[in-house]
Amino acid sequence: MAEFTVNPWEVSGAIDYDKLIKDFGTKKIDGQLRQRLSDDAGEMHHMLRRGYFFSHRDLDLALDDYEKKKGFFLYTGRGPSGPMHIGHLIPLVFTKWMQERFGANLYIEVTDDEKFLVKQNMKWEDTQKYSYENILDMIAVGLDAKKTFIFKDSEYVKNVYPLLLKVAKKTTFSTAKAVFGFTDSSNIGIIFYPAYQVVPTFFENKRCVIPAAIDQDPYWRIQRDVAEGLGFYKTAAVHSRFLPPLTGVEGKMSSSAADTAIWLTDDEKTVKNKINKYAFSGGRISVEEHRKLGGNPDIDVSYQWLSIFFEPDDAKLKKIHDDYEGGKMLTGELKQILIEKINNFLAAHSEKREKARELVDEFMYEGELAKQMWKKQF
Amino acid sequence: MAEFTVNPWEVSGAIDYDKLIKDFGTKKIDGQLRQRLSDDAGEMHHMLRRGYFFSHRDLDLALDDYEKKKGFFLYTGRGPSGPMHIGHLIPLVFTKWMQERFGANLYIEVTDDEKFLVKQNMKWEDTQKYSYENILDMIAVGLDAKKTFIFKDSEYVKNVYPLLLKVAKKTTFSTAKAVFGFTDSSNIGIIFYPAYQVVPTFFENKRCVIPAAIDQDPYWRIQRDVAEGLGFYKTAAVHSRFLPPLTGVEGKMSSSAADTAIWLTDDEKTVKNKINKYAFSGGRISVEEHRKLGGNPDIDVSYQWLSIFFEPDDAKLKKIHDDYEGGKMLTGELKQILIEKINNFLAAHSEKREKARELVDEFMYEGELAKQMWKKQF
Repeated sequence: MAEFTVNPWEVSGAIDYDKLIKDFGTKKIDGQLRQRLSDDAGEMHHMLRRGYFFSHRDLDLALDDYEKKKGFFLYTGRGPSGPMHIGHLIPLVFTKWMQERFGANLYIEVTDDEKFLVKQNMKWEDTQKYSYENILDMIAVGLDAKKTFIFKDSEYVKNVYPLLLKVAKKTTFSTAKAVFGFTDSSNIGIIFYPAYQVVPTFFENKRCVIPAAIDQDPYWRIQRDVAEGLGFYKTAAVHSRFLPPLTGVEGKMSSSAADTAIWLTDDEKTVKNKINKYAFSGGRISVEEHRKLGGNPDIDVSYQWLSIFFEPDDAKLKKIHDDYEGGKMLTGELKQILIEKINNFLAAHSEKREKARELVDEFMYEGELAKQMWKKQF
Repeated sequence: MAEFTVNPWEVSGAIDYDKLIKDFGTKKIDGQLRQRLSDDAGEMHHMLRRGYFFSHRDLDLALDDYEKKKGFFLYTGRGPSGPMHIGHLIPLVFTKWMQERFGANLYIEVTDDEKFLVKQNMKWEDTQKYSYENILDMIAVGLDAKKTFIFKDSEYVKNVYPLLLKVAKKTTFSTAKAVFGFTDSSNIGIIFYPAYQVVPTFFENKRCVIPAAIDQDPYWRIQRDVAEGLGFYKTAAVHSRFLPPLTGVEGKMSSSAADTAIWLTDDEKTVKNKINKYAFSGGRISVEEHRKLGGNPDIDVSYQWLSIFFEPDDAKLKKIHDDYEGGKMLTGELKQILIEKINNFLAAHSEKREKARELVDEFMYEGELAKQMWKKQF
């Protein structure tokens, strides 16, 4: 029996996503719901079509609200503990699509407090530097400045403090311990933090939809425990699978294994070297054997990355799949396709990232939604 | 052997203050230190002369700093969970004297967050109402608007959040549990709160002096644990004894026993009735016996209140003492003296309290110190 572990601190092993749905008590995005979401959106995103986003909570209710013209809003976050890699960006690309297609407001919480509190050697100044850097990366995804509010916890705290206290008052240490794994030696700041993670789900009197990888789901248990008692909606969520690390299709891309991730600032040569050196291959031991028996796309990380993100075109993806499986395409050729895709993506990203410097104020303070939010007291 | 309990949640029994000093590890304010404090102040306050403020931490170092012209600052707080009684005001009267005599800045933390978090049925709106009411009472004591900053935790949080996190990061749940008695069912807000109580002790690059009843001392253990690691001074403190409740010299006046406290809004008749009905008497069972054997001022609450607060004149107090002890003064007469003193005090307080309405902005936002503080980011 294959063993795997998925919780907010660890993702490892060969993940059985159907079992996860059962264990976590979420629901599968079935064919009907996927079609409904796509009909409402006006198109089907390839991350849905290919089952990358595969599980949900209350997405059907959020769509009810949308269809009744009440609408919903989106919420995601970023812990600014360092630079960002491709794995951080992918859920945001889907979030951007949701924003665009549903005209939904999006709130992005930059958890400078959390990262300072959990990382023993992280200085406050570091969290501030990374906050800025990460915000550039997020803006570069192409979010709508009028409908997006990006805020740092440390800056927005005054506006939300009473609501933060209301959430905290309803959350016991036992509950927080069960969800976050706190112990007696946890610091009292990080014990409080879960309350701040809940607050943005109450920013509007609508249902909140959180697009995130499924390992993040337990974090929202507290939200779903306290929401209705405080007069708000339980949050909805759409859950993705994990972007595998370069080294194999098990687990997920992680910041702590730098070489197995592609960073948004990696240059062309670095990308090429990393993919060639580390990307786990589903190919055969020799060209001869590969030509004869073909490769295995299911365990080939390069193919998986193309499928999840870098090749949205189904026909092209299918051709790659079949050529590789049929032995017509060699691992080196497959890797070359991915290298080009990644480098094109990063070049475009880098350009948009530079332009983002001038947009930071709009997303954080001066844009339409940001301005409204700075006037609110929760 | 007499038994007593003193901790931040309970004060009961006949308190052995010398034993408390040993148990808490504080130091006695001896004759020499009392004289030095008074010399520096230019006069001896009767609360010092009569030993009401009797214990300290690092007061000698604060006086060193004062004598070297570096100076120190004062800090106290108020939890806005209801109206205030006489027992709440007395430490503040001493604090005002310290401010005046040492030209020290004073910071008053109004812990609206704490009270909301600990009182199960308290609504946020209540803490805001009581905050305002309590601030009026505190201003009425006669604090210096140029040198005092009164702030609500919920309002000032943005200015202190990073420092709050730094304190929290250095405080484990074990430590907070030991000091505050938290359990697994404590809410995660109140577990975080101790960090906020520490922060004002770091408002200036000087030593902080906290005047408070000695039961509050344990709260500062966290401060003294983390201060130097963060580049600040360990706080100093001066500790008072307890103002006894009307019903007897043991324990302390408490908000939870309304009839045994004198509230700042009690009218003349209420004061008269309460003192006559509840004030524990050191007198004899009959007038005849009292005349013959005399009363016992040591256990007479009316006398104790005069001594602690309401009769600053030593000669007058001595005469009352001797007359009562000698049987010349009856309990009714002694009570009458106290009733008049309290009613005069409350009448004057009430007048100053009305005038305070126009001073709130100055103490909180517009005064010299307040303005400086709103510009600071910790």
